[in-house]
Amino acid sequence: MSLARLKLPARRLPTRAACVRLSSTACPPSSPNRPLFPCVDAHAARESRLMASFAAQSSPHTPGDVCDTGPEPPYARPNPTSYHIYHHRHPLPLTYYSTPLPSFDIAYETWGTLSPNKDNVILLHTGLSASSHAASTPANSAPGWWENFIGPGKPIDTNTFFVICTNVIGGCYGSTGPSSIEDATGKPWATRFPIVSIFDMVNAQFALLDHLGVQKLYASVGCSMGAMQSLAAGWLHPQRVGKIVSISGTARSSPSAVAMRFAQRSVLMADPNWNNGFYYDGLPPHTGMKLARQIATITYRSGPEWDQRFGRQLRPLPDTEEHPPGSPRTPVLCPDLLIETYLDHQGESFCLKYDANSLIYISKAMDLFDMTLSALESLNIQSSGVHPSALDSASSDPTQQPHRTSHSKSHPPPVNPPPYLPDLAAGMQPLKNIPTLVLGVQSDILFTVEQQREVADALRMGGNENVSYYELGGVWGHDTFLIDVLNVGGAIRGFLS
Amino acid sequence: MSLARLKLPARRLPTRAACVRLSSTACPPSSPNRPLFPCVDAHAARESRLMASFAAQSSPHTPGDVCDTGPEPPYARPNPTSYHIYHHRHPLPLTYYSTPLPSFDIAYETWGTLSPNKDNVILLHTGLSASSHAASTPANSAPGWWENFIGPGKPIDTNTFFVICTNVIGGCYGSTGPSSIEDATGKPWATRFPIVSIFDMVNAQFALLDHLGVQKLYASVGCSMGAMQSLAAGWLHPQRVGKIVSISGTARSSPSAVAMRFAQRSVLMADPNWNNGFYYDGLPPHTGMKLARQIATITYRSGPEWDQRFGRQLRPLPDTEEHPPGSPRTPVLCPDLLIETYLDHQGESFCLKYDANSLIYISKAMDLFDMTLSALESLNIQSSGVHPSALDSASSDPTQQPHRTSHSKSHPPPVNPPPYLPDLAAGMQPLKNIPTLVLGVQSDILFTVEQQREVADALRMGGNENVSYYELGGVWGHDTFLIDVLNVGGAIRGFLS
Repeated sequence: MSLARLKLPARRLPTRAACVRLSSTACPPSSPNRPLFPCVDAHAARESRLMASFAAQSSPHTPGDVCDTGPEPPYARPNPTSYHIYHHRHPLPLTYYSTPLPSFDIAYETWGTLSPNKDNVILLHTGLSASSHAASTPANSAPGWWENFIGPGKPIDTNTFFVICTNVIGGCYGSTGPSSIEDATGKPWATRFPIVSIFDMVNAQFALLDHLGVQKLYASVGCSMGAMQSLAAGWLHPQRVGKIVSISGTARSSPSAVAMRFAQRSVLMADPNWNNGFYYDGLPPHTGMKLARQIATITYRSGPEWDQRFGRQLRPLPDTEEHPPGSPRTPVLCPDLLIETYLDHQGESFCLKYDANSLIYISKAMDLFDMTLSALESLNIQSSGVHPSALDSASSDPTQQPHRTSHSKSHPPPVNPPPYLPDLAAGMQPLKNIPTLVLGVQSDILFTVEQQREVADALRMGGNENVSYYELGGVWGHDTFLIDVLNVGGAIRGFLS
Repeated sequence: MSLARLKLPARRLPTRAACVRLSSTACPPSSPNRPLFPCVDAHAARESRLMASFAAQSSPHTPGDVCDTGPEPPYARPNPTSYHIYHHRHPLPLTYYSTPLPSFDIAYETWGTLSPNKDNVILLHTGLSASSHAASTPANSAPGWWENFIGPGKPIDTNTFFVICTNVIGGCYGSTGPSSIEDATGKPWATRFPIVSIFDMVNAQFALLDHLGVQKLYASVGCSMGAMQSLAAGWLHPQRVGKIVSISGTARSSPSAVAMRFAQRSVLMADPNWNNGFYYDGLPPHTGMKLARQIATITYRSGPEWDQRFGRQLRPLPDTEEHPPGSPRTPVLCPDLLIETYLDHQGESFCLKYDANSLIYISKAMDLFDMTLSALESLNIQSSGVHPSALDSASSDPTQQPHRTSHSKSHPPPVNPPPYLPDLAAGMQPLKNIPTLVLGVQSDILFTVEQQREVADALRMGGNENVSYYELGGVWGHDTFLIDVLNVGGAIRGFLS
């Protein structure tokens, strides 16, 4: 027999007591003790804590509770103190239904001062799970999700601009969404809430602009899903949008991004607590939310960043675990490597911070976003910048209508364009007169750099001669827009000035 | 109010009856009906089917049942008819424990004819979830997982070679794993099974080779996790391996690949049926397995392939759903796009085919694989090709020992190598005299092309002057090794001849 010999001196077996204390399979193979799985027990422990907190309440928790447990700014309905709510008493037409949403709330915050003729407004659109709290305010001093980008002298300079950021329709931070009470029933909408589109989100924002008397935006700015909204704003209301900033977004969700979001929705909807979306009088699907967030987190950074940041480092052992310094460690089935601990922590810290149904609805809206002409034509929406007959005449097969799309001399057509590019260019033609900044990141695996090029190419092919295009290197992946003030902020500052 | 006007004529609302039949949120917003979620109901339906089948059995199901439900070859313990089992009566030393596995079974199949002096043997290593059934045999005519690569005149030509493929230790297709009965207790090991390493898997295979009287392999061949084993075989037994083929593998699992496998293990272990691994006398964690497979499937192909194959096509509607041809469709929260249906189907078809604990243990073994010298030194294993004292003297800081690694003139050191490359080269020095084929795929997101270059660079830096390196284009991603007979097969054929 030639099995490799043991090199090291026989490793000390854990004592029976230590074995029970150690997590999973640290026990010797023949140990009668069942292994422990702290990473799994955490779900049950969380459930028990929630159950106890639930039982201590005098009445069933309100939808707001679901969102109010995390670090996002607290919202105390119906009298928010840290943000504004505009209640729109008229119906909101919906992209996928002939029946409109009867009325809606939209939560928003502002920074800077509105100029007398209201021409210095920047509408800032959020990513999937962000609230309107993009930066700190007198009413809420907590840092916002874009704290370093908004303020006096910052890339979006509030000495010049009046910035408005809303919580999107479908969200859970003050705007109407699945956790809101439906007037007709007096209960949360849950999954009876209609599926909303990126265009519906933007139309709700424009209802707010109407309310504020803002006729035309200086710029529509967004990153990630916010970039989708930014493009959608230009498409719906070309005369009302002065400039567009699209950072790490897309004009047509790719199947690989859909796949990652589908995986998240699947684990969430499989949580028994989800209960087909009707969990508002019980416990939320916290385990599904944690697992979904773990998957999402994988798409937000990049392999090279994790190589640099975590490599193959092991998680530090707590003092309670027996492990003499310098001695080899026996692996466990729960997290061993730092990258695992990181994902576990990201999931844990998010799982009670956001409404599960909002995650499902908004991620679905992202999946459905598609600005190709053939896709837009099937929807209950239209651009106010193109006469309907022009769109109607362009219907049958957009790839057979090369005369509808051109390309500027300074930017020749791309090499090996995707086959749908002419269709996308035709769909994006309403944006042809709006100067647009398109910025992407080469290490982004969710909104790939190919998709950024696609947005710029489609705009240019659709006749837009004012497309600024930047690609950033670095290892921060999709999260670059949250981190890289120097480069992302610099491009925005230059483009807005 | 300037909300975009409706362009299309008002869409017909589904009738109440149709609304109930349609899946999720197809109902008008104010409908009192609760939406249906066929994609979620599928889990409960599967649970009911399993429960009924379980109740119909006269005794609790055996571990084999868990693995025998899918298309893999049926295994009828203890008398397999379609594969061989070698029972090793001696202990198997384990990488992470001083206590060995007392004894073990290893299932295997063969193709071709063993030459009189037993010098034409190719040991084929499998990926994570594959059985020993790499190609059809007289005993099992079902196509194997590498059917087009093995046979007379095929890339691994059985007119010349005698091919052996095993089910790995830790697996569930005949070899000893968590679902096997532990002699000491008479019950399945479950998660009391020790964590095994890639090296342990290979040592078990070499015990089989000893049993068969094979002193030296013509070649050790593997793809994906099989490539890890192939490299490990060369490291453990350099004198017994003539050539190495490493396709789409790695010598050091990257944090991004660990992250994807961690996400799979997490959803699986969160399934209440998993029960800390002790589910063999109950129902298996089929929902967790389905969700895990959905995530895994995302890593097996590539975004460009999905763009070409699915794009943004919608799933076909079954005849039972009301939808007039040509009319716009209302989206649902369950799968809408073909990419979602594809992932759903991949998960569904796998969830009862493989043992959940085997998936956890083997994916963990992949995560733990690391051939850097500093990592190898902490393990209970050693290469039979290097004197222990040589390894011992190279311990403290491998990056401070440039004299231990060189680089051939024909292959200068890489530009911008990862910082751990000298450590990896030092660890892989035992392979320096084994001609090695390293082949990778540029669209592979699980075992990236950078990792393939790393393997080749480390081998060359460690003194190996016979490294053949190929990179393939194409859109098939990690699965290329299962599909591309022309290019993958061609490289193997050329290298083996």
